[in-house]
Amino acid sequence: MNARDYTGAVPRAPGLRRALEALAAGRTTVSVLVEQALDAAESAQRRFNAFATIDGEGALKAARESERRYAEGRPRALEGLAIGIKDLIDTRGIETRYGSAAFLGHVPDADAEIVAALVALGAIPIGKTSTHEFAWGVTTASRSFGAALNPLDPGRIPGGSSGGAAAAIAHGAVAAGLGTDTGGSVRIPAALCGVVGFKPSFGALSTRGIFPLAPTLDHAGLLGETVDDVALLAQALRLGTPPGEARAAVRLGVVREIAPVAPSAAVASIFDAAVARLADGFDCEAVAAPRLFDATFEAFAQIVLAEGGIEHFRRSSAERIASHYGRETIERLERAKALTLGDYAHAQQVRREFTARLRQAMARFDVLVLPTCPCTAPRVGEDEVAIGPWRGSVREALMRYTAPFNLAGFPALSIPLAAPDGGLPAALQIVARPGHDGALLRIARRIEALLRTERPCTPAPRIDHDTRSTP
Amino acid sequence: MNARDYTGAVPRAPGLRRALEALAAGRTTVSVLVEQALDAAESAQRRFNAFATIDGEGALKAARESERRYAEGRPRALEGLAIGIKDLIDTRGIETRYGSAAFLGHVPDADAEIVAALVALGAIPIGKTSTHEFAWGVTTASRSFGAALNPLDPGRIPGGSSGGAAAAIAHGAVAAGLGTDTGGSVRIPAALCGVVGFKPSFGALSTRGIFPLAPTLDHAGLLGETVDDVALLAQALRLGTPPGEARAAVRLGVVREIAPVAPSAAVASIFDAAVARLADGFDCEAVAAPRLFDATFEAFAQIVLAEGGIEHFRRSSAERIASHYGRETIERLERAKALTLGDYAHAQQVRREFTARLRQAMARFDVLVLPTCPCTAPRVGEDEVAIGPWRGSVREALMRYTAPFNLAGFPALSIPLAAPDGGLPAALQIVARPGHDGALLRIARRIEALLRTERPCTPAPRIDHDTRSTP
Repeated sequence: MNARDYTGAVPRAPGLRRALEALAAGRTTVSVLVEQALDAAESAQRRFNAFATIDGEGALKAARESERRYAEGRPRALEGLAIGIKDLIDTRGIETRYGSAAFLGHVPDADAEIVAALVALGAIPIGKTSTHEFAWGVTTASRSFGAALNPLDPGRIPGGSSGGAAAAIAHGAVAAGLGTDTGGSVRIPAALCGVVGFKPSFGALSTRGIFPLAPTLDHAGLLGETVDDVALLAQALRLGTPPGEARAAVRLGVVREIAPVAPSAAVASIFDAAVARLADGFDCEAVAAPRLFDATFEAFAQIVLAEGGIEHFRRSSAERIASHYGRETIERLERAKALTLGDYAHAQQVRREFTARLRQAMARFDVLVLPTCPCTAPRVGEDEVAIGPWRGSVREALMRYTAPFNLAGFPALSIPLAAPDGGLPAALQIVARPGHDGALLRIARRIEALLRTERPCTPAPRIDHDTRSTP
Repeated sequence: MNARDYTGAVPRAPGLRRALEALAAGRTTVSVLVEQALDAAESAQRRFNAFATIDGEGALKAARESERRYAEGRPRALEGLAIGIKDLIDTRGIETRYGSAAFLGHVPDADAEIVAALVALGAIPIGKTSTHEFAWGVTTASRSFGAALNPLDPGRIPGGSSGGAAAAIAHGAVAAGLGTDTGGSVRIPAALCGVVGFKPSFGALSTRGIFPLAPTLDHAGLLGETVDDVALLAQALRLGTPPGEARAAVRLGVVREIAPVAPSAAVASIFDAAVARLADGFDCEAVAAPRLFDATFEAFAQIVLAEGGIEHFRRSSAERIASHYGRETIERLERAKALTLGDYAHAQQVRREFTARLRQAMARFDVLVLPTCPCTAPRVGEDEVAIGPWRGSVREALMRYTAPFNLAGFPALSIPLAAPDGGLPAALQIVARPGHDGALLRIARRIEALLRTERPCTPAPRIDHDTRSTP
């Protein structure tokens, strides 16, 4: 790829704002940062399967162009920032396989709208981060491409379906990236890998050029090492960050559990400690609406199954599905065939009723806070988990707390919560009303500042002892 | 609206090209043409219910802006041309009710992409042409808004769902307009009203900002008085009209009927006479593929029912459907509930097999020609028709010959064929391979020239004896 000395050291990507400052001040160059990112991406690919494709050549070419812009004194808002793009999202000239062997070698001829927007702002995609096949799952495991692993503990899953993006950030390859979130696919891997994940209001970011999973639930989203990384991208994309500070007396509605899956003891304890600290800066009050989330997971699951089925039956012949899709997707599509449109209509009706209840429950709050997931990262290869007395699929466990906000289309952001013993982190999910993306980011920043005393999780060792020949 | 003498005479809109020439030469002004169009549109609205809304104020404002551009010597490609926009298509600031009482008073805040493109080229939307509720039907009748009528014979339907557009053109209010075509909704009303209707290749024109009926079948399309009107808009929209003439030896594959609905005696006789004349200019040969269209209508009907159902169950609550939708749509949605996704998958599979057969059957031809509809315009209020020994719904009769090309996504254009006795016209449908939109237009122009000896149909009287007070 790029011929230069390889020292074996893989420095961690700086935060986006620090990178911009260093570039503006001439303390580093875009090529240096991009080369660092590419090295770290290769390490993240090799060790955690975080990347599906790395585009060294394209990234270094873009870096030289960015350097020209700095030299000419006309850098754009995100000039020279290395980012990762989830492999569900089209990238012109870069292989995009949507996590599926059915799309091996598929090279889109246009960027997705959101990629085009970021590139027009100067950001540099260094590669495609791994995803569950067609984003239809929460483990980012693949029979064709192997399982993505969690950099905090490679025996654990990174979550999904934007698992590669979260792993890449947790490993320090990039400070931020693009993901998608249909039932939690940005927030869950962010929570499990100890990074920040932001699913904006439904429709706030374009999904054009992103392979659909379930169009009424699909959101493009952002992942970053900190709220600031995410906010910087959001602001560049004009995601409603109007000027002005959040009001002094921000009212937090606290949801401790979503039945029937109460949080694990570890998550409950970390969450309660965090809420206790939040009371220093916010008006916190428990949300008294015990039936609020009833039937939401079931409605969500039916809508995904129906819409996912529709999308694939449209695109792929029976022969193509049988011969090129992974077994898990094939089984889902078989189950989808039994659904009626009456089932679908009913699920959408449940969704409407839930959205109305949620709006009502939030009337007295600026945001809700709740755990992002009821457990920490499950082990690789596990299909089921036990959380207290509850036992069920990893899929259901991880999505129970996130999917409701896809149903409602409300913006939601996940912030990592460190475990006191240095164990796996939990995460705090913050939910705002639709359109209040800017306010949500401001509140999240305050919450992060209040909670953060140290990095919430132990990053994986950053020195890579593999040797590699230079070309 | 606009204060001026009202003479009662409603001049017919000139063809787009003649209008452009007259404007460029200063022989008329945009305001004059737009005022004429508005007068004729009001007459078409009053007599044939062709318009849902007429935007006199907006059109006259745009006309003044257009005149400024002519005065400054910088007219755009479609500068000052009055057009109609089907009411399924969003128009900024103009009421857009998608043919439904559920959207009475709905005013979009943005133009559909294709409207924005035409407006950016200088075209002037004078109003919204009537459509069947949500474009889900072929009669353009509405319990809420009344039935649109056929200007060639007001006791007949104009077809649908772009019935208002075809009626407006047949009446001479505009020379061209935008429609949509999911199973024939541009070509059928064009055929029944004696105008030209063009459904380009699937995806060739943007459907963004158009209310979806069945997204895998929905096409935006163009209607015009002549092929030239349609071609002028198509070319302005960059719909693939590469330079160069059509090849001398164009091969026409002739399809006389699509089982089980053989054309009526009148249509068969008009069609055969046309084909006999085409043999003077083209290599004509019967397509020998008797099972080619098998199962296509049934697959089409299931896909529309499923996708239409999905779209409405997404958008509208059970209460809203029950209280605001028309009875016909409500009944369709009830029937949709019984469909399974397995039915849908099967219909999509049938569609794929048909598309492969069609591609194969067309391998030796440049275009196929066939009747656009097996009958002439049915009477207003009829639900069933008898065509020879066949008896069935008006819906099935009118769509049997058009819907297959929505399934396949092949471009298709309908040219009117005059009846020898001055009776209702039939129409010739010309079908090309996907992406060959430009070639199709060139061939259509040659076919039109070969067939046209006189206007194919008797326009309705153009003198309107209503009196009207000036404001």
